Amino acid sequence: MRILVLGGDGYLGWPTALHLSQRGHDVGIVDSLIRRAWDHELGASSLTPIRSLHERIAAWHALTGRTIVPFIGDLCDYTFLEPIVRDFQPQAVVHFGEQRSAPFSMIDRRHAVFTQINNITGTLNLLYALADHAPECHLVKLGTMGEYGTPNIDIEEGFITITHKGRTDTLPYPKQPGSFYHLSKVHDSHNIMFCCKIWGLRATDLNQGVVYGVETPETAMDERLCTRFDYDGVFGTALNRFLVQAVVGVPLTVYGKGGQTRGFLDIRDTLACVELAIRNPPTRGEYRVFNQFTEQFNVAGLAEAVREAAREFGLHVVIDHLPNPRVEQEEHYYNAANTRLLDLGLQPHYLSETLLESVIRIVMQYKDRVRPELILPAVDWRRTHNEGMPLAAARGREV
Amino acid sequence: MRILVLGGDGYLGWPTALHLSQRGHDVGIVDSLIRRAWDHELGASSLTPIRSLHERIAAWHALTGRTIVPFIGDLCDYTFLEPIVRDFQPQAVVHFGEQRSAPFSMIDRRHAVFTQINNITGTLNLLYALADHAPECHLVKLGTMGEYGTPNIDIEEGFITITHKGRTDTLPYPKQPGSFYHLSKVHDSHNIMFCCKIWGLRATDLNQGVVYGVETPETAMDERLCTRFDYDGVFGTALNRFLVQAVVGVPLTVYGKGGQTRGFLDIRDTLACVELAIRNPPTRGEYRVFNQFTEQFNVAGLAEAVREAAREFGLHVVIDHLPNPRVEQEEHYYNAANTRLLDLGLQPHYLSETLLESVIRIVMQYKDRVRPELILPAVDWRRTHNEGMPLAAARGREV
Repeated sequence: MRILVLGGDGYLGWPTALHLSQRGHDVGIVDSLIRRAWDHELGASSLTPIRSLHERIAAWHALTGRTIVPFIGDLCDYTFLEPIVRDFQPQAVVHFGEQRSAPFSMIDRRHAVFTQINNITGTLNLLYALADHAPECHLVKLGTMGEYGTPNIDIEEGFITITHKGRTDTLPYPKQPGSFYHLSKVHDSHNIMFCCKIWGLRATDLNQGVVYGVETPETAMDERLCTRFDYDGVFGTALNRFLVQAVVGVPLTVYGKGGQTRGFLDIRDTLACVELAIRNPPTRGEYRVFNQFTEQFNVAGLAEAVREAAREFGLHVVIDHLPNPRVEQEEHYYNAANTRLLDLGLQPHYLSETLLESVIRIVMQYKDRVRPELILPAVDWRRTHNEGMPLAAARGREV
Repeated sequence: MRILVLGGDGYLGWPTALHLSQRGHDVGIVDSLIRRAWDHELGASSLTPIRSLHERIAAWHALTGRTIVPFIGDLCDYTFLEPIVRDFQPQAVVHFGEQRSAPFSMIDRRHAVFTQINNITGTLNLLYALADHAPECHLVKLGTMGEYGTPNIDIEEGFITITHKGRTDTLPYPKQPGSFYHLSKVHDSHNIMFCCKIWGLRATDLNQGVVYGVETPETAMDERLCTRFDYDGVFGTALNRFLVQAVVGVPLTVYGKGGQTRGFLDIRDTLACVELAIRNPPTRGEYRVFNQFTEQFNVAGLAEAVREAAREFGLHVVIDHLPNPRVEQEEHYYNAANTRLLDLGLQPHYLSETLLESVIRIVMQYKDRVRPELILPAVDWRRTHNEGMPLAAARGREV
């Protein structure tokens, strides 16, 4: 099958491209490489020593004989995107090509507007290109569980049947996203649903939980194939930050009470879910939503799990609580459905001490690259940060 | 009170500015005047001979002694908007400053992306400017009843209480917008709700129905104060198109079966609703939604009403049905709540033959300015229109 992976140079896009290439698909990567520029903006970098996209692709070819075609450019530039879709004629497009950090979107007005305009424009451009040049193509779009927020009722997969004043309808599940980034994904979801309706496109919206883990069978073949591991306060997840803090011997920093519960999944399950979606496409005109996570944890529980796992390495871990820089409920009901991917055959990798230990081992391998000052939060949801102070200076001042 | 009217040169923005100025408020108008450029793009123009913004403001001052301050520029340009909010220190902002035509947003990819990016960026910029410089200010944002679509259950005012699997929560009402324009308003609603939550802003989202009528007490004072009346297939509402078709003696063109039911209101009630919202502001941090319409009609019923009213003028009206250029249900359940503005004291002007006759009289007054070829639909929801054919050519071909 001909498959384009948008954002194929990123944390998940790269392993997804390898996974699909390994299974014999013709894979093209579309990426603007801007994620690498943001590292420079933030003064941060991947813990793992990621190679350039061209080096990665060359290494993959040398190791497997398989070819991945790179297209370097911006989805917001239609003169770039349109001929790719027209000429590559993808049968599936896996769309990771968006700004994906909540704190990045909250840095200031420019970053908020950039995030929404970038994500919405890229996706609208893609929808038009598909409608005009590949209307049979299956769009596999990465959304986020964060679109739902934390309602006091069970979270369903994209839609909910509501009986109200004696009448019943199945409607899009109400959304309460918690950052300008999460909002951009909600906007995308509405736009995609509409285009499936008017043009008969087909799309799977993967409302993904927080992904953990850094290795897949393909990236583990050679260090040149490793994917990025972010632990900074802007792009790193809580679990990654905790793992790095444990290894370098500073307290784990839980935001607030730590009762925030979210869905999580192993990076290998991300690849499996994308593949399952591709192998079981929706019909023309169908917009479907899968909640893509395998387990629920709260943040304090993750910190405890890291403490337990670190003990095996003789590491003594202290857990601290910081004032929460986000505006979110710290204790709340959370119960989200996630049966649709299981029904398609997903065999989850559950978070276990084994997995945490394997990631701790990787963090220890690259321990010399850790810069602990990057881990603490520099972005506060309650502030607009528009006083003209650059983020780097803010971080220096607040640490 | 110091009040900024964004989009204050437009169909509703201008009468709103006059209405508020007449009641003694200090009114500033912010407008990029791009609506006038779109007339040139589409080869269309207002049936009523609107004057330039500067002429209007001068006439208003000459007639009443009241001053309205114009700020000409683009909300998407933060270097323009920020100092206005900082220096004017508005206590209320009435935000009409968006691209507001569904067909315009469906012309092609450029117009779709423009509509969403323009509307979202302008509103995000405004939210940041308010947070930084006027956090007590009350944002009165014009949304649309079209955000809800046509669900098979009653439409509530912004939120709905859902009991699901034994638990209950009040959540944002699910949205099913029917064009890239309507989608942009849904995106705005989510963004505004979020900013009220994180920054303690206060906002009223007026989910407005279709507005009819062309005169208000202030605009009727002098022809130089008239507001625009659009009857073309892109910016004109169904009712306006029917009224013009009746006067010039061509068949009324109902899209499809005409069972599409929507909420409607008189232009004078728009002004009353905005004023009621301003006089009864929400508390800090509150995001509230009012459904702003007074009656429900379906399109076929409107056509019949126009036929009846036209009979009084000796006009014989024929009703035609065109293939529907939109993707929408032509027969559906529709029952929307609209009690919150009535509870604040709204005294509706209901659509009656009297009102239709007064508008017919205005259309007859400017009959020589009518160009019937502009009325028929040139934009088809099912097509992407990206074959490079300009809209004007498309219209020429399809008429």
